[in-house]
Amino acid sequence: MSGTVLVINPNSTVAVTAGIDRACEPLRMASGPRIECVTLAEGPPGIQTQRDVDAVVAPLVRLIGELDARAAAFVIACFSDPGLHSARETTGKPVLGIMECGILAALTLGQRFGVIAILPASIPRHRRAIGAMGLADRLAGERAVGLNVVELVDEAKTLDRMIAVARELRDRDGADAIVMGCAGMAQYRDRVADAAGIPVVEPTQAAVAMAIGRVRLGWSS
Amino acid sequence: MSGTVLVINPNSTVAVTAGIDRACEPLRMASGPRIECVTLAEGPPGIQTQRDVDAVVAPLVRLIGELDARAAAFVIACFSDPGLHSARETTGKPVLGIMECGILAALTLGQRFGVIAILPASIPRHRRAIGAMGLADRLAGERAVGLNVVELVDEAKTLDRMIAVARELRDRDGADAIVMGCAGMAQYRDRVADAAGIPVVEPTQAAVAMAIGRVRLGWSS
Amino acid sequence: MSGTVLVINPNSTVAVTAGIDRACEPLRMASGPRIECVTLAEGPPGIQTQRDVDAVVAPLVRLIGELDARAAAFVIACFSDPGLHSARETTGKPVLGIMECGILAALTLGQRFGVIAILPASIPRHRRAIGAMGLADRLAGERAVGLNVVELVDEAKTLDRMIAVARELRDRDGADAIVMGCAGMAQYRDRVADAAGIPVVEPTQAAVAMAIGRVRLGWSS
Amino acid sequence: MSGTVLVINPNSTVAVTAGIDRACEPLRMASGPRIECVTLAEGPPGIQTQRDVDAVVAPLVRLIGELDARAAAFVIACFSDPGLHSARETTGKPVLGIMECGILAALTLGQRFGVIAILPASIPRHRRAIGAMGLADRLAGERAVGLNVVELVDEAKTLDRMIAVARELRDRDGADAIVMGCAGMAQYRDRVADAAGIPVVEPTQAAVAMAIGRVRLGWSS
Amino acid sequence: MSGTVLVINPNSTVAVTAGIDRACEPLRMASGPRIECVTLAEGPPGIQTQRDVDAVVAPLVRLIGELDARAAAFVIACFSDPGLHSARETTGKPVLGIMECGILAALTLGQRFGVIAILPASIPRHRRAIGAMGLADRLAGERAVGLNVVELVDEAKTLDRMIAVARELRDRDGADAIVMGCAGMAQYRDRVADAAGIPVVEPTQAAVAMAIGRVRLGWSS
Amino acid sequence: MSGTVLVINPNSTVAVTAGIDRACEPLRMASGPRIECVTLAEGPPGIQTQRDVDAVVAPLVRLIGELDARAAAFVIACFSDPGLHSARETTGKPVLGIMECGILAALTLGQRFGVIAILPASIPRHRRAIGAMGLADRLAGERAVGLNVVELVDEAKTLDRMIAVARELRDRDGADAIVMGCAGMAQYRDRVADAAGIPVVEPTQAAVAMAIGRVRLGWSS
Repeated sequence: MSGTVLVINPNSTVAVTAGIDRACEPLRMASGPRIECVTLAEGPPGIQTQRDVDAVVAPLVRLIGELDARAAAFVIACFSDPGLHSARETTGKPVLGIMECGILAALTLGQRFGVIAILPASIPRHRRAIGAMGLADRLAGERAVGLNVVELVDEAKTLDRMIAVARELRDRDGADAIVMGCAGMAQYRDRVADAAGIPVVEPTQAAVAMAIGRVRLGWSS
Repeated sequence: MSGTVLVINPNSTVAVTAGIDRACEPLRMASGPRIECVTLAEGPPGIQTQRDVDAVVAPLVRLIGELDARAAAFVIACFSDPGLHSARETTGKPVLGIMECGILAALTLGQRFGVIAILPASIPRHRRAIGAMGLADRLAGERAVGLNVVELVDEAKTLDRMIAVARELRDRDGADAIVMGCAGMAQYRDRVADAAGIPVVEPTQAAVAMAIGRVRLGWSS
Repeated sequence: MSGTVLVINPNSTVAVTAGIDRACEPLRMASGPRIECVTLAEGPPGIQTQRDVDAVVAPLVRLIGELDARAAAFVIACFSDPGLHSARETTGKPVLGIMECGILAALTLGQRFGVIAILPASIPRHRRAIGAMGLADRLAGERAVGLNVVELVDEAKTLDRMIAVARELRDRDGADAIVMGCAGMAQYRDRVADAAGIPVVEPTQAAVAMAIGRVRLGWSS
Repeated sequence: MSGTVLVINPNSTVAVTAGIDRACEPLRMASGPRIECVTLAEGPPGIQTQRDVDAVVAPLVRLIGELDARAAAFVIACFSDPGLHSARETTGKPVLGIMECGILAALTLGQRFGVIAILPASIPRHRRAIGAMGLADRLAGERAVGLNVVELVDEAKTLDRMIAVARELRDRDGADAIVMGCAGMAQYRDRVADAAGIPVVEPTQAAVAMAIGRVRLGWSS
Repeated sequence: MSGTVLVINPNSTVAVTAGIDRACEPLRMASGPRIECVTLAEGPPGIQTQRDVDAVVAPLVRLIGELDARAAAFVIACFSDPGLHSARETTGKPVLGIMECGILAALTLGQRFGVIAILPASIPRHRRAIGAMGLADRLAGERAVGLNVVELVDEAKTLDRMIAVARELRDRDGADAIVMGCAGMAQYRDRVADAAGIPVVEPTQAAVAMAIGRVRLGWSS
Repeated sequence: MSGTVLVINPNSTVAVTAGIDRACEPLRMASGPRIECVTLAEGPPGIQTQRDVDAVVAPLVRLIGELDARAAAFVIACFSDPGLHSARETTGKPVLGIMECGILAALTLGQRFGVIAILPASIPRHRRAIGAMGLADRLAGERAVGLNVVELVDEAKTLDRMIAVARELRDRDGADAIVMGCAGMAQYRDRVADAAGIPVVEPTQAAVAMAIGRVRLGWSS
């Protein structure tokens, strides 16, 4: 039962897929499942709005259908978990979303979690999902980095803002652990964790780790 | 400020749209907003799965864009509220979903509400939405009619099952009010309400009523 | 089914009733229900305490009994929803409270709502009601204008404070929509909404809009 | 700091007050507060509806005002806690309601509590109060004895029904402890507890016990 | 039924037991239960961590077993309620925890309560307990005094910090009442309450008061 | 980063440890962490009461201290998660509890989960933990197998009861997924899942899978 965990980046930016692939490296084990990261060519460059989220479901589900024969499990690597429940109807293989798994991992690392969003407008969408998960009482707060696309290219600036936001979540909102609310921020995890002094969850890693277990155990979902 | 409330049936079955149109009749007032019911031609015959829900968002949002100039408000007439938040990003006009409005109306009619679903498989999807609405504590329970498409054509049988389910929601789950969990059941409302002896909400009517107010008041959303 | 929506101002200040009446103007439609606003002569000049709330129930219920024959629905136009459930026992006609309906409307306009109270002492009372509604998870926060009666006469000052409070609810508490926690503030709605940049619900308008639908649909409650 | 705990029966049935008085007997201690039970002459024979609840607030608050000088604390001995918050505005002395205290006591006796109501129609009212207390997750369920006034006179029948209801709360709803949802049932407590085999709270006793502590400690509320 | 309420200080610091004993003084009544405060010799000097909490359960339960014959009820006088549920398995006598009872008392004194913790690291532990009690919606916030052992000896400094924290809970978090999150702070209660202007609960007093009622009523738990 | 996941069975029954070891087999991967299962010699033969839970914390924490140097992560393999938070204070390595991880895994497999307990008396304890996790809204229900030690030896009888309970959780309580509430039931998982037709989580497997990810990622907790 070793098959392949297929990690789908639902945006079309291959640099993001490459970053996800690097983030998966520690989870590759000799006789463990292969971990393969693919890009959804039909996706937008970035998923920012609810419309973006909804628009990728059709091609995403189609891709899952195409890849199903050679996959043992799927991970949807976008923090809005686009198409998660549609994907679960599409395949009998386990499908995990990085928001869901990132938050579940955080629940084992602190009593209340904070979320670092990229955009302020994503916060109500994330709160709807957290409500659907029944986890509102564990949420300390969510705050946005609030940088635009140009600024996000500036790594030093981005890191500074992420650290600042992590500290606000810890000090003003009382977060005991942090979830990075984006699939493309893995490179900053260690430095944000060091600076904030509380655990920080990189959600794709959390999801892939869970998917490996699911593959090995062969539980039908 | 009288414009038009555009009620979109996201499935392609025009008989359902015709039923919705009849259900809107009492809400048509001389100087009030026009109420126009349209069918989403690209929709499936019925929306039953999460995949169906997600698949209609793209054409639904496109239709809203096309109709935007002549609409004062939109109602999405499917109990899964497909594309509700995408639609709200698409237009500055009010957009209301019938699940959301049906449940909100029920909250004014009893302390705990029950939902009559068509299919058992819809219940987890509805519970996710009710969780996202923060309303889990007001939900008494949800039960499915559990008839297949052929059986649903038999009106007497369908009515009997709806009444039976309404009474179970009242007696076993403690519901004080009932929400019909489907856009195509308006014709049964009065008889189910009479038989169950507790208020029954027809959700499209609830949503259109709310939309009329929104149009008259001109609140930007 | 066109009857009359009777909007009862449970305080005895006729200027407030006049303001409510003006706020209802957009909801008057040619063949729609008449909307008539009446003052509860026995009410106090303003309803500020729980004692005020409880004290108006007896005369309010008596008035509803007297007016029942010529009413199709009732709206209780005080943000504490005094006597709401007693009124529902008194008449078979729909009875709607402005707090309940104002908050329900806000749920369609944002994921979390904030409330602008007049007095700090009202906040625990409102929180009890929001808890009874099962909506604690949707409440971002409530803050008081905190002006005394003399200061409230100063419209510019009142507007300034309402705007400041709305912005605090948005920025510190994370409100996506605002509910005005008083029946007498309709005149400020548009300006507060413009200044805050998020939707603002005038609760009497929300309740009357819902009452119109209820009258047209003829649902027994 | 020994003063008097004034227990007010807000219905006018002196036999009920006498029963309450007997129930208080074990809580009378030599140097402890006096416990005096009084009848609200203006109350109805029994408090059954929300209108009954609201109607007693005015005379109840008046009585509290009259008795304030010789009271150290008040207990409102009706399970709907009529006028609880108005009373707290009326006097600086502690005011406790038997619903509130009965439920709080039950929280120390089991993880989830069940409530034995007299009438089915009281259940939504009680659920509103439990929601306002933020305790919905601790409620296993509420069930009504469902006997009419004539039947309630038959003690054997009443006891049988209370025991049957207590067992349903335990077995069907999963209650670990029971709260008697009425001030007039103290005589049955021991027998219901024996028959159900789980703790049963008599709410007036729970409230008076708490009031004694409040009097001795002199905490201002 | 007058027996003895045994109040066990699970830390080994006899000065703390002496303070608890003084705090119980107002609750001693001529024919009421004796109140006897004992020190758990095997406890640590102070209970600060989860390990401390868990480590005292074994000797605490043993002590309860030894004292059972001469006790009518037990109070565990540490704000982490160590061993509360183990103790309830050990004896048929009522066992009350000061965290549980302190919070329950606060629920009768305000809509939302704040907690003054000694150490920041205790806050997640307290939140877990508040979650287990189903009371997250009533919690306004918890803040720590944050003084070390040496600083806590300085009474003026400690009082200043407690007052500052109480005011932050009131003003920033919206607390209507305060619970002192430690068994050893009774001496400060009156002054903190005066300075904050809202009710302050000393939790051991709250628990002993409840225990007296339980003893007098003879309810089996 | 491959180290060893140490799975501690806190009861002293080595046959249970052997069963856990077999359950871990699918999670052993060539270059992945070693998985070693150890028995807490000082534990009782089975952990059934809160006293049992609390009593194993001291030896469990001591064992964790002793094994810390050669462990990369710990799993506490008892469904009451004994000493989970004490263990997290004891070591900087990840510590996971099987209740926590079993429930978190179930959240990815269905909207509401049911728990199969061995003993009825464990249910309130589990509900306290689920409350502390903030997950009450996701719990469909918990039901006990209710067999005694002698009966549990009879595998056919045990399997029959587990299947019956799983079906009750699905049909009466509405569970979409099941969590086995005991570390010693792994052998029945596949057959219960087949018979119930919904996903069934074996909690030790869920926890070990998560621990593997934690080890590979090297997140400090």
